[in-house]
Amino acid sequence: MSHLLVTGSIGIDTVETPLGRAENVLGGSAVYFSLAAALYAPTRMVAAVGGDFDDRLLAPLKARGVDVSGIEVRPGSRTFRWSGRYEGAMNEAQTTAVALNVLAEDAPKIPPAFTDSRCLFLANTHPAIQAEFAQRFKHCEFIMCDTMNFWIETEGAALATALKNVHGLVLNEGEARLMTGRTNLITAGREILRRGPRVVIIKKGEHGALMFTGDEVASQPAYPTEKVVDPTGCGDTFAGALMGYLTSKGKFDSATIRAAMARGAAAASIVLESFSIDASAGATKAIVEERVAGLRRASSFE
Amino acid sequence: MSHLLVTGSIGIDTVETPLGRAENVLGGSAVYFSLAAALYAPTRMVAAVGGDFDDRLLAPLKARGVDVSGIEVRPGSRTFRWSGRYEGAMNEAQTTAVALNVLAEDAPKIPPAFTDSRCLFLANTHPAIQAEFAQRFKHCEFIMCDTMNFWIETEGAALATALKNVHGLVLNEGEARLMTGRTNLITAGREILRRGPRVVIIKKGEHGALMFTGDEVASQPAYPTEKVVDPTGCGDTFAGALMGYLTSKGKFDSATIRAAMARGAAAASIVLESFSIDASAGATKAIVEERVAGLRRASSFE
Repeated sequence: MSHLLVTGSIGIDTVETPLGRAENVLGGSAVYFSLAAALYAPTRMVAAVGGDFDDRLLAPLKARGVDVSGIEVRPGSRTFRWSGRYEGAMNEAQTTAVALNVLAEDAPKIPPAFTDSRCLFLANTHPAIQAEFAQRFKHCEFIMCDTMNFWIETEGAALATALKNVHGLVLNEGEARLMTGRTNLITAGREILRRGPRVVIIKKGEHGALMFTGDEVASQPAYPTEKVVDPTGCGDTFAGALMGYLTSKGKFDSATIRAAMARGAAAASIVLESFSIDASAGATKAIVEERVAGLRRASSFE
Repeated sequence: MSHLLVTGSIGIDTVETPLGRAENVLGGSAVYFSLAAALYAPTRMVAAVGGDFDDRLLAPLKARGVDVSGIEVRPGSRTFRWSGRYEGAMNEAQTTAVALNVLAEDAPKIPPAFTDSRCLFLANTHPAIQAEFAQRFKHCEFIMCDTMNFWIETEGAALATALKNVHGLVLNEGEARLMTGRTNLITAGREILRRGPRVVIIKKGEHGALMFTGDEVASQPAYPTEKVVDPTGCGDTFAGALMGYLTSKGKFDSATIRAAMARGAAAASIVLESFSIDASAGATKAIVEERVAGLRRASSFE
């Protein structure tokens, strides 16, 4: 089978950027991830929402063929909510309010029918849950996880276990520096490689991404764009297109991962162009591939 | 003729980084630039020094064939001195002391024999001097200049004139944002294009460089390196290899400039590896080209 499984969050976001404000819009790592991933591979989503969730919000995901049957609705709970603000170059969100709600409860169950997935992406959550899922799905051909500052600072031991049970880790440059205490990102990436994963990807926002595997370092520039409305979901979209592409190819060598990163960069440049998932929902595989061709032109030389 | 002419500074630097300290070592924009440029094209240097300058310091430049006959020695003056410190990720120098000395006097004269140079690089100096040189050398096939925060803030009108008289401008990301008031670098680069130059290159340190020409944006990643001893001279080395390559090709179209940027990135990764010019003086064209091949591997994808 060539399915991709993602576990992550579904959120209701309120976001303010220099270009405007969006209130109570759909967000969450699993949402952004799936919408991009499903352009390349059949994607199965596992997440939980509360009784307050309006499932009409899922229409764009269903329209893209995302399997949403793994979304658990918990009538007695409330959906995860996040409010944030971006300023200046919009490189980092400042969280202004957060209500974990359903995210503070038990992790959602993975339906038995999803067990045969080829690849698994464990979006940012408690590393003990990531380690547990990774162990349960160790038959998967490629498992990648994300993490964040909070877990690096407070759950180092659990995170170390998680890293030993995944094939790949994707994190941003600040997180890579925090995790290793290294300022040089090449040193940081190589050091994380020694902690377990055989692929480490460091996301650098407008500066693209670095990929480490074996002795190799690859560098993927960001797609050059002037239309930056809201960066929320960029990292998850990058990971989604990347994992979708890998799942579709069924190969996980360096050349395929480099090609997958280009898809990630192209897809991420689209989600930037609107609040929430609007721009991403309007994209097609052909549009992403056109940007991949643009990236190839922009970074090739004689 | 296929000569490259550079006007810039020769300095005596004292530099402190997390990896050590170097006192009273050779520095200056024209020095770093020429040492890299001369790997690709015969390079002529115009600069001024004081009576205190020990010309044995120029041995590595002479050994590389740089024409130093345009260096003016002013017995009654003192050589430019700069002291700086880098911390953390070493992305930016903090100047701890500076004595302009000879740089505060008249610009050095350009020897008549240098008039037939194919290309001209005007390293960072007062934009009125850059404009004057650019006008005097308007027969050159390609003239590029550098600038800095100080001139952007205090000499806007002179800088605007200089920009109308050069083919290319190279500056760093902070300078590009300051010059345009734009945080998005793609917007900033395109806006600077409208002010005169037909090529704009924005240097981003460890994140590489962006190049703007016409409607095109190219992205050059930095060469991935862990050995960062002292970043002083990186930008000038980048510009030196870039201009040297362009001069040797005698073509200034987008494809050639992209190839030239890769040479710049490769050469810049070498100068990082030591204080002053030590690593750069030990490099050869073959070593730079080997890193160019590494950059191609690191940034290509299917």
